[in-house]
Amino acid sequence: MKLKVVTSLVAVVIAMPLFAQEPISPIAPATGINEGQAELGKKLYFDPRLSKSGFISCNSCHNLSMGGTDNLKTSIGHNWQQGPINSPTVLNSSMNLAQFWDGRAKDLKEQAGGPIANPKEMGFTHELAVDVLASIPGYVDEFKKVFSADEINIDQVTQAIAEFEKTLVTPNSRFDQWLQGDKNAINKQELAGYNLFKDSGCVACHNGPAVGGTMYQKMGLVAPYETKNPAQGRFAVTGNEIDRYSFKVPTLRNVELTYPYFHDGEAQTLSEAVDVMGKLQLGRTFNKQEISDIVAFLKTLTGEQPKFSLPILPASTDKTPSPQPFTEQVAD
Amino acid sequence: MKLKVVTSLVAVVIAMPLFAQEPISPIAPATGINEGQAELGKKLYFDPRLSKSGFISCNSCHNLSMGGTDNLKTSIGHNWQQGPINSPTVLNSSMNLAQFWDGRAKDLKEQAGGPIANPKEMGFTHELAVDVLASIPGYVDEFKKVFSADEINIDQVTQAIAEFEKTLVTPNSRFDQWLQGDKNAINKQELAGYNLFKDSGCVACHNGPAVGGTMYQKMGLVAPYETKNPAQGRFAVTGNEIDRYSFKVPTLRNVELTYPYFHDGEAQTLSEAVDVMGKLQLGRTFNKQEISDIVAFLKTLTGEQPKFSLPILPASTDKTPSPQPFTEQVAD
Repeated sequence: MKLKVVTSLVAVVIAMPLFAQEPISPIAPATGINEGQAELGKKLYFDPRLSKSGFISCNSCHNLSMGGTDNLKTSIGHNWQQGPINSPTVLNSSMNLAQFWDGRAKDLKEQAGGPIANPKEMGFTHELAVDVLASIPGYVDEFKKVFSADEINIDQVTQAIAEFEKTLVTPNSRFDQWLQGDKNAINKQELAGYNLFKDSGCVACHNGPAVGGTMYQKMGLVAPYETKNPAQGRFAVTGNEIDRYSFKVPTLRNVELTYPYFHDGEAQTLSEAVDVMGKLQLGRTFNKQEISDIVAFLKTLTGEQPKFSLPILPASTDKTPSPQPFTEQVAD
Repeated sequence: MKLKVVTSLVAVVIAMPLFAQEPISPIAPATGINEGQAELGKKLYFDPRLSKSGFISCNSCHNLSMGGTDNLKTSIGHNWQQGPINSPTVLNSSMNLAQFWDGRAKDLKEQAGGPIANPKEMGFTHELAVDVLASIPGYVDEFKKVFSADEINIDQVTQAIAEFEKTLVTPNSRFDQWLQGDKNAINKQELAGYNLFKDSGCVACHNGPAVGGTMYQKMGLVAPYETKNPAQGRFAVTGNEIDRYSFKVPTLRNVELTYPYFHDGEAQTLSEAVDVMGKLQLGRTFNKQEISDIVAFLKTLTGEQPKFSLPILPASTDKTPSPQPFTEQVAD
């Protein structure tokens, strides 16, 4: 009788999904999406008319053909200005505890308004962006349908973009297949890399479904990080000395696609990033084999990329203010 | 007996599609496409790694969300340089007698190589672009499959892009539905506009399936066109005085989406463009109603926009040369 109970318990444990015991959990498909908002948001995400120049859209720096990034050290903004920081991926960004490297936006909606009005990014104003949209009947109709309101405002714009961004999850990576019980989904080296990733302490910060995004951490915990990049991280938000050089731990989902790495984009390769992280965050020098194993594991985190039709944008009209790519214009 | 023959002839004439008697014919769906090349070409078309900066792709200036143009007077190139001329639509461009405003490229394949190596556009070289692609296993495999060759070369690159561009036709506009016999597809004003478009002589240049693209014509035929834009048109290609200010007649398909107008992009609205064309090309001042009618007709030329999934680009590797957006680099 006693033996039977034990056997049953073992059976239960075996039947439990593997990830219940792992510090990383699978990416779930997006649910609870407001489809109307997301469809509108997809158009806005691809619309360069939200920039002063008429040339830069959300997708310019968070390119959904390229892992939701621009694959540049730091981004190109209005008038080819060099951005101050590496463009983080939009993929799975709904899982972040906050947005931007320093967490200064509490959620995707708050984030979406930032680049539009940043003079170094899209170089526009919220008022002018709304004026442009309000001059386009295709948008006026769709906003009305989606938000049941007579006038377009920036709150609706950022809400719609955020709703679209919530759809940008990447489930079903090989690692997630393994977590869900397919033992053949990753190979021996990849598994060795994962075990080392756990045992050496990487997982202390890179955990949860997004393998990151759940906390802030100092860049250069054991030894200082040398960079010419002036970003102060979380300190810029809180003013607390303890937050200096503390950045949001980035997601490692799709990290194979989101090169180059770190807030300054100075690590060109995954091997370099793993090496630096080991030394600066863990006080550990990984040997070549170890780096190779961890990199192999990291590449199993590439999930299914969002698949959708390129949106066709509603046409401007005679009343739409013209983009101003080459002249400096005084904002209203 | 004689009467019977005549009756039969009348029946034949009635049964003929309307467009057989019209100077504009419907856009046919793309046929004879090499699907493998077109799929590869779609990726290349969206890949900013074909530019020095890693930021500008074909789609930057021929944006398929926006009628295959950038909707700017003249385009933004590498380092935010102002382009010399308005970016023509890629839609239905396979029907042009030649490519570029001055026809200096004989076909889409020859055109595709131009912007990559133009220092004012993508600012790269063909050699460096091929080096980038050859460092990316996802591309190496696909080129091999599509072209059955061991090495990637620029000829394959431009061939694939051109093949994709051949798919970018826009059939089934309301005007084409009318041409094909649906009398209710356009309204009375639109029909009046079409009749005026024919009767006043617009159709002498804007004809064929693309409603343009079949010939060169002097900009300022009756009266000179005043512009600060230094483009000399076809003269730059032939050196013949008669070709000075002669430009390829642009397609009017999707013209509602391809604002602003003319080679210098100086006409912001369709009304303005029609007014100027009437005066300068036909020696005719259209009144407000006439302009309104022609514009109404022109808007019936908007066809079904190409519908496809945003391509996911193969990832760079440790060996891929980094983009150089902010440093000047001596080309090999």
